Amino acid sequence: MELWFSEMHTENVRFSIKVDRQLYSGQSEFQRIDIFDSPEFGRFLTLDGFMMLTEKDEFIYHEMIAHVPMAVHPQAKNVLLVGAGDGGVAREIARYDTVKNIDVAEIDPEVVRVCREYLPQTALSFDDPRVHVYYEDGIRFIRRCANQYDLIIIDSTDPFGPGESLFTKEFYGSCHQALKEDGIMVNQHESPFYAEDAKEMRQAHKKIAANFPISLLYQAHIPTYPSGHWLFGFAAKKYHPLHDFHADNWSKLGIKTKYYNPGIHRGAFALPSYVEEMLNDARS
Amino acid sequence: MELWFSEMHTENVRFSIKVDRQLYSGQSEFQRIDIFDSPEFGRFLTLDGFMMLTEKDEFIYHEMIAHVPMAVHPQAKNVLLVGAGDGGVAREIARYDTVKNIDVAEIDPEVVRVCREYLPQTALSFDDPRVHVYYEDGIRFIRRCANQYDLIIIDSTDPFGPGESLFTKEFYGSCHQALKEDGIMVNQHESPFYAEDAKEMRQAHKKIAANFPISLLYQAHIPTYPSGHWLFGFAAKKYHPLHDFHADNWSKLGIKTKYYNPGIHRGAFALPSYVEEMLNDARS
Repeated sequence: MELWFSEMHTENVRFSIKVDRQLYSGQSEFQRIDIFDSPEFGRFLTLDGFMMLTEKDEFIYHEMIAHVPMAVHPQAKNVLLVGAGDGGVAREIARYDTVKNIDVAEIDPEVVRVCREYLPQTALSFDDPRVHVYYEDGIRFIRRCANQYDLIIIDSTDPFGPGESLFTKEFYGSCHQALKEDGIMVNQHESPFYAEDAKEMRQAHKKIAANFPISLLYQAHIPTYPSGHWLFGFAAKKYHPLHDFHADNWSKLGIKTKYYNPGIHRGAFALPSYVEEMLNDARS
Repeated sequence: MELWFSEMHTENVRFSIKVDRQLYSGQSEFQRIDIFDSPEFGRFLTLDGFMMLTEKDEFIYHEMIAHVPMAVHPQAKNVLLVGAGDGGVAREIARYDTVKNIDVAEIDPEVVRVCREYLPQTALSFDDPRVHVYYEDGIRFIRRCANQYDLIIIDSTDPFGPGESLFTKEFYGSCHQALKEDGIMVNQHESPFYAEDAKEMRQAHKKIAANFPISLLYQAHIPTYPSGHWLFGFAAKKYHPLHDFHADNWSKLGIKTKYYNPGIHRGAFALPSYVEEMLNDARS
């Protein structure tokens, strides 16, 4: 027997993964949640049929969304994660002793429950006493926050369904207000390659750049996301991701990583010319 | 009706592209050659069923394999392309006025003929009077060359079938001999992500590093290649790809590119930690 999971990367491009078994399938209040086991990628999580993470390549996404801002902020103590119900971002942030508190605003308790049961590789971070999960829509949670976080990481789904509100001008404005005066916001920022993803990417950049004096994008190779070329947004009130990056200080921490390193940190902000042009157009 | 082209990226991962029409299918002395037209990628070329190029993303591969060495070598006049029967690399190299001669050693005349007919976007370079095509196996062609090329670019298929000899120690040794004392060799260097590709990548690096004093890898995002994370090898007798890279000189040429730029040049050599570890292991 053959069992294949397929995701449409566009209506004309399909990415398929051979599956051993479906380990879980359920419908929460917000979305359909599935866990599969596969020979190539190990276990993987999908929400409404869209790939969220695989055991094989989740290190790339989670390291790049977490270590880039942590290596720039000299003393991040209080961190907010929006979405992030699989625990992967919290796992990377929890590796810093300077961090005293990690709030997670995840709309869907079922995502956390299912990941704790089937994806211990990422969900183990929920056992860290510094991690506090609030089951609430990120946009509602953040409205009542002011001047309190050093770092906000938006680990959202795509800009439709439960993740849609996390791509609005209002939400980015609330993040700005929730950050301290030297705070940093990082978000998953879609992809520049396929037209639909690129449209979302340009719109998000326009809204973020309107709220933050420093707003740049950086990239990583994520094989299981559409086109494999994925972007992250780095927005800050004070720190520049390259000028305020001190590689030696980060290296001294002795954090062992599989993708991120100081060279990658600098290199990731060098974007292809066609992407730079898209961003210039979005800002103008 | 629906028509889909599929390529197995591993035996457990399949990448599929919706096809409008098959424009050409033929069997040459060396391989099966197909041209398709597709809504997402425009026309694309496959050899023995493996994706070679699409009209939508070929600029990434061809710019990165050509402009990186051209921006390092201060005065490349005589260039050899091995494989490259679609004309894409020659098109990029021909944009430099300093280049006086471009030899192309392509084993399969049918590839050139079919690309001239169906892929004018890349094959137009064959009309440049500086381009000379030799229909011969690259390894045979290069054996009789000595101290004559400033730059050799190996635009090969994967290390099996007609491209296999282009991944041998003998071939890299002959390239070293065919280059002038300040010559550069660049090759497509497979991918680090899936195990089979990564094995070929490590073996190629080991053989190249044994022949050249300077041997580094750089990367690009190529959505239609397995994992989207593709590597190129930069090997040289004298020039270091970063220390001898003078961005201003390249920018002054006014060559308009869609992916390559001086920031990408530097950033592309910053590899993920797991790739650096693979390369260290290969060299030791």
